[in-house]
Amino acid sequence: MSTDLMPNRYRPGEVNLPARDAELIARRDAVLGLSYRLQYRRPVHFVRGEGMWLYDPDGRAYLDFYNNVPSLGHCHPEVNAAMAEQAARISANTRYLEPRLVDYAERLVDAFPEELNRVVFTCTGSESNDLALRIARLASGGEGVIVSSYAYHGTSAAAAAVSPNLGDAVKLSPFVRMVSLPGPAGIPESQAADFFEAQVRSAILDLNRRGIGVAALLIDSIFSSDGVWVDPPGFITGGVAAVRDAGGLIIADEVQPGFGRTGIHMWGFERHRIVPDLVTLGKPMGNGFPIGAVVGRKAPMERFGATARYSNTFAGNTVGIATADAVLTILQRDQIPQHALAMSEQLRAGLEGLAKKHRGVRAIRNAGLFFGIDIGPDEIAIPEKRAMALGVVNAMRDDGVLISTTGANEDTLKVRPPLVCQAEHVDLFLATFERAITNVAV
Amino acid sequence: MSTDLMPNRYRPGEVNLPARDAELIARRDAVLGLSYRLQYRRPVHFVRGEGMWLYDPDGRAYLDFYNNVPSLGHCHPEVNAAMAEQAARISANTRYLEPRLVDYAERLVDAFPEELNRVVFTCTGSESNDLALRIARLASGGEGVIVSSYAYHGTSAAAAAVSPNLGDAVKLSPFVRMVSLPGPAGIPESQAADFFEAQVRSAILDLNRRGIGVAALLIDSIFSSDGVWVDPPGFITGGVAAVRDAGGLIIADEVQPGFGRTGIHMWGFERHRIVPDLVTLGKPMGNGFPIGAVVGRKAPMERFGATARYSNTFAGNTVGIATADAVLTILQRDQIPQHALAMSEQLRAGLEGLAKKHRGVRAIRNAGLFFGIDIGPDEIAIPEKRAMALGVVNAMRDDGVLISTTGANEDTLKVRPPLVCQAEHVDLFLATFERAITNVAV
Repeated sequence: MSTDLMPNRYRPGEVNLPARDAELIARRDAVLGLSYRLQYRRPVHFVRGEGMWLYDPDGRAYLDFYNNVPSLGHCHPEVNAAMAEQAARISANTRYLEPRLVDYAERLVDAFPEELNRVVFTCTGSESNDLALRIARLASGGEGVIVSSYAYHGTSAAAAAVSPNLGDAVKLSPFVRMVSLPGPAGIPESQAADFFEAQVRSAILDLNRRGIGVAALLIDSIFSSDGVWVDPPGFITGGVAAVRDAGGLIIADEVQPGFGRTGIHMWGFERHRIVPDLVTLGKPMGNGFPIGAVVGRKAPMERFGATARYSNTFAGNTVGIATADAVLTILQRDQIPQHALAMSEQLRAGLEGLAKKHRGVRAIRNAGLFFGIDIGPDEIAIPEKRAMALGVVNAMRDDGVLISTTGANEDTLKVRPPLVCQAEHVDLFLATFERAITNVAV
Repeated sequence: MSTDLMPNRYRPGEVNLPARDAELIARRDAVLGLSYRLQYRRPVHFVRGEGMWLYDPDGRAYLDFYNNVPSLGHCHPEVNAAMAEQAARISANTRYLEPRLVDYAERLVDAFPEELNRVVFTCTGSESNDLALRIARLASGGEGVIVSSYAYHGTSAAAAAVSPNLGDAVKLSPFVRMVSLPGPAGIPESQAADFFEAQVRSAILDLNRRGIGVAALLIDSIFSSDGVWVDPPGFITGGVAAVRDAGGLIIADEVQPGFGRTGIHMWGFERHRIVPDLVTLGKPMGNGFPIGAVVGRKAPMERFGATARYSNTFAGNTVGIATADAVLTILQRDQIPQHALAMSEQLRAGLEGLAKKHRGVRAIRNAGLFFGIDIGPDEIAIPEKRAMALGVVNAMRDDGVLISTTGANEDTLKVRPPLVCQAEHVDLFLATFERAITNVAV
């Protein structure tokens, strides 16, 4: 793993900043401290957002190909109107009868395979994963959790303890086991399923030998923080079956792939043709409003509900529900997942064209509008690849397009535009990317 | 502890409900499951809120003396306008430069004693307590957490594991120790400090003998879920010193007492004349918008920030910050804590008058506008006291005033109106309470 856990960030002294920004950063560091990191060599400051665009104080426009929270675009008028209208009428909690809460819960589970017909609301993706782990541990009787090598599942103590991506400074749970993915291990696609299953079986064996037992396989179906390893579809099915045989549950972390990001499908797990036991939701669910959920099968959800009192003050609040309701309505009405697929095909075709012309583009992977683009030719060393990827990200930022990096070596570009991007935005992204990859020295 | 963890709730079949409500509850149970509980024997449904009032579909008004999230009143126009205006302009995360985030962070820490000068934002009180535990464990090197006997600190796995209030179905951490409070143990006030300190010292000894060490004393300064045990002010100071001597941190859970609830003071810990190491915030911080924070001393906060990457997608988002900024502005500009003190004195005087006339009022405790009223004369058994308290709560609900119960025996009324209540609301509450306590048989 990269020793720098967030390479694409501002480092004091690396560049000269305008006095206005330098002074603000000094104040920020003093009160917020070091856990608050700024993206880009030259941090950006936005005063206005609209659709695909963010604007800085000088009126300069930046094309957003990075933020996957405002999936419907920045400052969506219809979503904001739903939020404001509900906030002006009533902001009620779930201890009161509220038809809108029930209506939305029903509509949400209707967007899932029929086995997944229960929902509990949360406020963040971290809370969703934290709660799903509680439910899985109660339902399975086991404690062990299997995740991918560079997984990130959230920021609560329990979620961070199963997030190897956070690095050495954050202690892992003694009950977590990491499995290598076939892609980054260099396994050919024809052997990917067997490789993954063998890794999972080995983890199960170890957990059982130590009396820990298996609570869950917790995976984000596009393995985003591992570097976006999405293919071949279905490569996880043998591992999924092995976990079920061992009494564990399958938790699909849909905080990033969910709500249409992967194109056509509303949920990333559908691409792998599995039906998980629990699904965790977050980021784009409210297009920016803090809301998340755990959707699941009846048996584990009822087991938890019947024994443990779960009360979350803000979760399921009518203002969050009204906002999420507007988001789901727009996603379905405007067939956003299908649109995302069409845009992703245009983007993929464009990137493949560039890869033929530019040695700096090593590989392209995507599921819908979540792209990983490996930067740097095979023959250069990892730190050089990483430096090149960072160079591309910062050149594009200076050129008015926002993306970042991901993956075990942080030499993979992470590209995930709002799902409402249009053909002209894809073209602009491609043109800007080509300038950057041309100018950044190999 | 009561075997029923939430006595004030709807139970199917206990009362006949209108078909409209019964049908909605059946749908609700089917999709949301049993962890979602409804308050009151006859659940309430609100379609509109304004200031101190909530309105049901038939237009009937209910005086809210229970909800401590909308401290500034329901659907506050100025707070909602700040939220809507920011949402229309930009909803930016903390990876971008944002003056408003820094301005609010500075204003927030300025409302604390000067030693507490760092802040990290979260989305909920549970996330705040979860994060504070992570920080305390990292800073202290210990794992043990000391809480009160019936403490509730949140719903994440780590927070629930130190929340004995959740009952037997939720496993406690092997590293948590509960200490009895002097009040419910029947200790006279003159011996309260010594009693509390002895309890804490005994917990420290046990944690150290087992090699667990002490990470934190985690307390809500009004001990709300224990039954509102606030006196004498300062009774916790010896226990606080003992934990510090043992290398542990003091975490003040201000999710309920914070932001002026206790009157005059902005924070509940000030009443006990201590300065904690970490303070956790939630509920009223955004008057309903999901926002929380951990405010703390430089050393533990920097230790955490320098080593652990903490990234919380929604926390510190400009929309939440703008909303919380409006709340803090109003609290300070309109001297809401001072107003809360004045109202609490009127309420206390009225309740003391009623206690002289009605044997059913056993004891009154409060810090500002957080009241615990013990119901039932000494000589009756606990289940009878609890039934009487429940009777009062439901009679008042039927009479148009909202409160609930708390405490180890759930025979304590929990009364915590929005801080903007006026003299006429206090009078109406007192008159309704007198009718209820008169009519509910001892």
